[in-house]
Amino acid sequence: MTNRPETPHLDQITWPEDLRRMTPGDLRAVADEVRSDMIWSVSQTGGHFGAGLGVVELTVALHYVFNTPHDRLIWDVGHQAYPHKILTGRRERMLSIRQGGGLSGFTKRKESDYDPFGAGHSSTSISAGLGMAVASKLAGRPEKAIAVIGDGAMSAGMAYEAMNNAHQAGNRLVVVLNDNDMSIAPAVGALSAYLSRVLSSQSYHSIRDIGKMVTSRLGRTLKETARRAEEYARGMVTGGTLFEELGFYYVGPIDGHNLDHLVPVFENVRDSGNGPILVHVVTEKGRGHPFGSEHKEKYHAVKKFDVVTGEQKKGGPAKAPQYTAVFAEQLIEEAKDDDKIVAITAAMPGGTGVSDFEKHFPDRTFDVGIAEQHAVTFAAGLACEGYKPFTAIYSTFLQRAYDQVVHDVAIQNLPVRFAIDRAGLVGADGSTHAGSFDVTYLAALPNMVVMAAGDEADLKRMVKTAVEYNDGPIAFRYPRGEGLGVDMPDEIEALEIGKGRVLRAGDKVAILSLGGRLGEALKAAEALEARGLSTTVADARFAKPLDTALIRDLAANHEVLITVEEGSIGGFGAHVSDYLVGAGILDGTDLKLRIMKLPDLYQDQDSPDAMYEAAGLTAPQIVEQALKALGRNDLSDATAAADLAGGKARA
Amino acid sequence: MTNRPETPHLDQITWPEDLRRMTPGDLRAVADEVRSDMIWSVSQTGGHFGAGLGVVELTVALHYVFNTPHDRLIWDVGHQAYPHKILTGRRERMLSIRQGGGLSGFTKRKESDYDPFGAGHSSTSISAGLGMAVASKLAGRPEKAIAVIGDGAMSAGMAYEAMNNAHQAGNRLVVVLNDNDMSIAPAVGALSAYLSRVLSSQSYHSIRDIGKMVTSRLGRTLKETARRAEEYARGMVTGGTLFEELGFYYVGPIDGHNLDHLVPVFENVRDSGNGPILVHVVTEKGRGHPFGSEHKEKYHAVKKFDVVTGEQKKGGPAKAPQYTAVFAEQLIEEAKDDDKIVAITAAMPGGTGVSDFEKHFPDRTFDVGIAEQHAVTFAAGLACEGYKPFTAIYSTFLQRAYDQVVHDVAIQNLPVRFAIDRAGLVGADGSTHAGSFDVTYLAALPNMVVMAAGDEADLKRMVKTAVEYNDGPIAFRYPRGEGLGVDMPDEIEALEIGKGRVLRAGDKVAILSLGGRLGEALKAAEALEARGLSTTVADARFAKPLDTALIRDLAANHEVLITVEEGSIGGFGAHVSDYLVGAGILDGTDLKLRIMKLPDLYQDQDSPDAMYEAAGLTAPQIVEQALKALGRNDLSDATAAADLAGGKARA
Repeated sequence: MTNRPETPHLDQITWPEDLRRMTPGDLRAVADEVRSDMIWSVSQTGGHFGAGLGVVELTVALHYVFNTPHDRLIWDVGHQAYPHKILTGRRERMLSIRQGGGLSGFTKRKESDYDPFGAGHSSTSISAGLGMAVASKLAGRPEKAIAVIGDGAMSAGMAYEAMNNAHQAGNRLVVVLNDNDMSIAPAVGALSAYLSRVLSSQSYHSIRDIGKMVTSRLGRTLKETARRAEEYARGMVTGGTLFEELGFYYVGPIDGHNLDHLVPVFENVRDSGNGPILVHVVTEKGRGHPFGSEHKEKYHAVKKFDVVTGEQKKGGPAKAPQYTAVFAEQLIEEAKDDDKIVAITAAMPGGTGVSDFEKHFPDRTFDVGIAEQHAVTFAAGLACEGYKPFTAIYSTFLQRAYDQVVHDVAIQNLPVRFAIDRAGLVGADGSTHAGSFDVTYLAALPNMVVMAAGDEADLKRMVKTAVEYNDGPIAFRYPRGEGLGVDMPDEIEALEIGKGRVLRAGDKVAILSLGGRLGEALKAAEALEARGLSTTVADARFAKPLDTALIRDLAANHEVLITVEEGSIGGFGAHVSDYLVGAGILDGTDLKLRIMKLPDLYQDQDSPDAMYEAAGLTAPQIVEQALKALGRNDLSDATAAADLAGGKARA
Repeated sequence: MTNRPETPHLDQITWPEDLRRMTPGDLRAVADEVRSDMIWSVSQTGGHFGAGLGVVELTVALHYVFNTPHDRLIWDVGHQAYPHKILTGRRERMLSIRQGGGLSGFTKRKESDYDPFGAGHSSTSISAGLGMAVASKLAGRPEKAIAVIGDGAMSAGMAYEAMNNAHQAGNRLVVVLNDNDMSIAPAVGALSAYLSRVLSSQSYHSIRDIGKMVTSRLGRTLKETARRAEEYARGMVTGGTLFEELGFYYVGPIDGHNLDHLVPVFENVRDSGNGPILVHVVTEKGRGHPFGSEHKEKYHAVKKFDVVTGEQKKGGPAKAPQYTAVFAEQLIEEAKDDDKIVAITAAMPGGTGVSDFEKHFPDRTFDVGIAEQHAVTFAAGLACEGYKPFTAIYSTFLQRAYDQVVHDVAIQNLPVRFAIDRAGLVGADGSTHAGSFDVTYLAALPNMVVMAAGDEADLKRMVKTAVEYNDGPIAFRYPRGEGLGVDMPDEIEALEIGKGRVLRAGDKVAILSLGGRLGEALKAAEALEARGLSTTVADARFAKPLDTALIRDLAANHEVLITVEEGSIGGFGAHVSDYLVGAGILDGTDLKLRIMKLPDLYQDQDSPDAMYEAAGLTAPQIVEQALKALGRNDLSDATAAADLAGGKARA
């Protein structure tokens, strides 16, 4: 670990108003210090990296020119906001980023007045900014909204919908297109190609020379300089047509690391009576870090690392394979024998494992960009023609395509396969990335089959099941991170649709688990057995269709039946109780049914273990639930406490 | 009623292959006969009208040139597919359209091989077509996919996402942009303005003259004509830049009523090695109907009418005000005293009542086009600034914005108001438009307040409640159609959050209704009382937060507790049972809980009453549920049958 770098200019800045008291000549030094300070702090904490490094100068220039927080500065996605946090009163808390009780890795309204809109998912900033700009217009106030959005995020339909309405805000909306030809994975699609054409033109290549001219004229008044810089920028328009046709006044492309260009152009934009304006800024993701430029997707988010060597700190040795890798491995295996299998990702090839699939089957892999809606209906079209599309989307991002799942897939009963990664709580990314609602919103749909993997071997079986099941849509969810370390069978067999499994049999307490809490359920059963409470653990495997025979059996032969899931209300537990109620099984019985699920609140980031404990879904908490249901009052005595602690330690 | 028009050419056509046997010279007559036949059949049935009339020639030309159904012809939304149905084996069934057991008002896969993709919601066709085209490419087949999409539908982000990926299909994807400057309401936004600029250019105005030239050359070979027609079309390119920048080969604009232009251009497109291609066709919605051109939105969907006078058949006199009108009236009333109230619609100003609001407050009304995602996050931005946005979106369309509701509104706890029209079953529009899932997918979200109106007076109270509640997001849902005819109070008061109401008190059976089935619940109670079963009817008003005191009370003091809702599993009933289970209230009691909800299937169109009976949510079915729960075996005797019939008659 190296020492924290010296930052004499930055040390004078706590808030943007401090920055705005500096001279233009100081800004280069400020930017350099922000960059080195950010590199140092991320080396200590890990976190999103390349995106922030790319926008250091942009951040300095925007806060220097605009009157934040009164002008609303909105960072799309928010993972590039580390320099912004450093300049808006949060520098000293940067070492807590993405940790429990610490700063969020994204923008967050409750964290700062300088975060007018929270993010995490992409492509929301123009809509939000437009809302704020229209509010400003309605109230007769002069404040602007500035939305900074990457070229990758521009591929999402939502951004286009917002651009289509941008005229409503008059000149109060400024969109800064941060063009680094990279979102998380390399940008894809026609818009990306369009922007590449713009940048490859000769006139853009000459920007650096013209930049020198601008700089040499700084003896003029600032206003004059601004006017000229803007003229140059306008003269450099080589491909703003697309945005101009969408009603924007287009400025660019501009070198996003040159403060002598950024500041006067933004000043001009700030004072312009035209509107809405799109400023096309070109940046280099990972700018300024010696190890950041080679493996761009890898450096999107990093673990703690050594500032000098770039070596990332290793976690402990893996106890079990990652669910994502298991999914990809099995899908590749299946695809060798079945050329109808294709894989679709929405700009997350690495995160979903689809990049592994692509190595084997490049022609059968489709990265559609940040476009979940299209991904799902595109899959529906493929399914119409007899293909077997595996649409791999994180639980939280599948929310973007809910109508497409309902209207284009489920109503038509098309056999689209949904591989739903990051189900349940996800740790450092916090509430915006939690996969809480998918079982609820999917299992409500007629025709859907919904599975959840209890361990990594079952995930393999579910992949195979999804390959073989061709009667309609089928989804399988699995958590972030490692499996349970179970033995992997040599031969993977498909599951029978709607059938669960019993992992251990007892006759007092039944724990019916769906998904990633299965390990905790098994630990809880051990702790209950140790108290003399005979406990069954069953893995439902299917939230839909339910294994009603299993549920009837569990209800008939136990005093307590507890469902456990890492999902919200309305999901698996609701389906189980709906069945029990509807069949009259609860009428006048002594069975005590309990539903354990995620709590009714958004949990901020922390370690996944800590988050699950806060959610009440650990083994000791399952034990506690069982004891309470049985009316056992030994919960509060010392033995119980020790027992629970033991159970927790094993978790 | 006039007689059915004579259609000597059309009478020779059952399938497109019959059409393809005709000469080009016959096509004009075929189109005229399709139009007059469609006008006649819609005059008998009612239904979507203007959209179909506008695409008669386009439909004839596409089926004439392309090899349907092997080439996949996909109609976006599907409500313009009446001419398509007439030409694809369904002419004789047109008189059953939108009726129970009849043809769907949209395209539907199970209805015909010529409907390769079902629709109802807009802007899905390019994604679906791209999936099919890619499948064709993967399989090495030559077939193309042709997506016909309106300019209004092009404003949706999903269409843009698909265009951004269109290059994946090579030349197998053809997008036909049907530009009629009208979706359901007048098109809004930058794209619409762009298309208007294209059309207002001089070169487009000359298209008719050039058209004559093309016609006069029909003595040449067809191929030569096609080549020339395409040259003309290319020469007329005046503003395809936007689409060309997105990677399309742009052809147009073309007069969409001139078969002498359409056919050769499509032949050329069919045989082209370039791809993807966008053909920009200009049509007039409602073309050819003497009464259709004046009130375009009104003639989007029509009731039965007189072909000669255009007079629409009246339904019976209204018994009660429409929910939509009640919502608009109250919102206008509130907005007079509160200038922070703004209204947002996504291209449904008439359907949602926002057009009424706009008459009073044009500056506070925002029609964002078919862009639900943007609508919600735009509302979030407004809410950040202290405005009170009422986002009026049908239940089924709000699915498009689910992630925005979660990520931009609920996580940030922003006070966006959701006015959810068309909750529950909707009748003639069928399964694609059913508002089945909103309570399930909204009430699962922390921070959300979810209300449902039991009658029109309560809808007014809910509007007022939403105005006054400023602590987070709040939604209220209400059915399509008329209220119950209850007295409207002079003074509207806001509801207490999370408190229901008891409408009649009993001690044997409790019916706890949420939403539009309240009238049925009250009828059921009468029928039960007539059998000596003392019955309570309560209106929960809130799915979230629940009125737990009310639920506890109902559970403690009745033998049977039945929840009733016009929504899917996982919704209100699930929340009630989750509460009862979690609080241990069901442990060892004799209470019989029952959950009545929509069935686990997609219901095809029918009258709303028939659909609710099929769903099992009518008064007699509530009675039946109560009797069964009580173990009463008098259900099947003659008295019971008569009683039930009486109950039904009163329904």
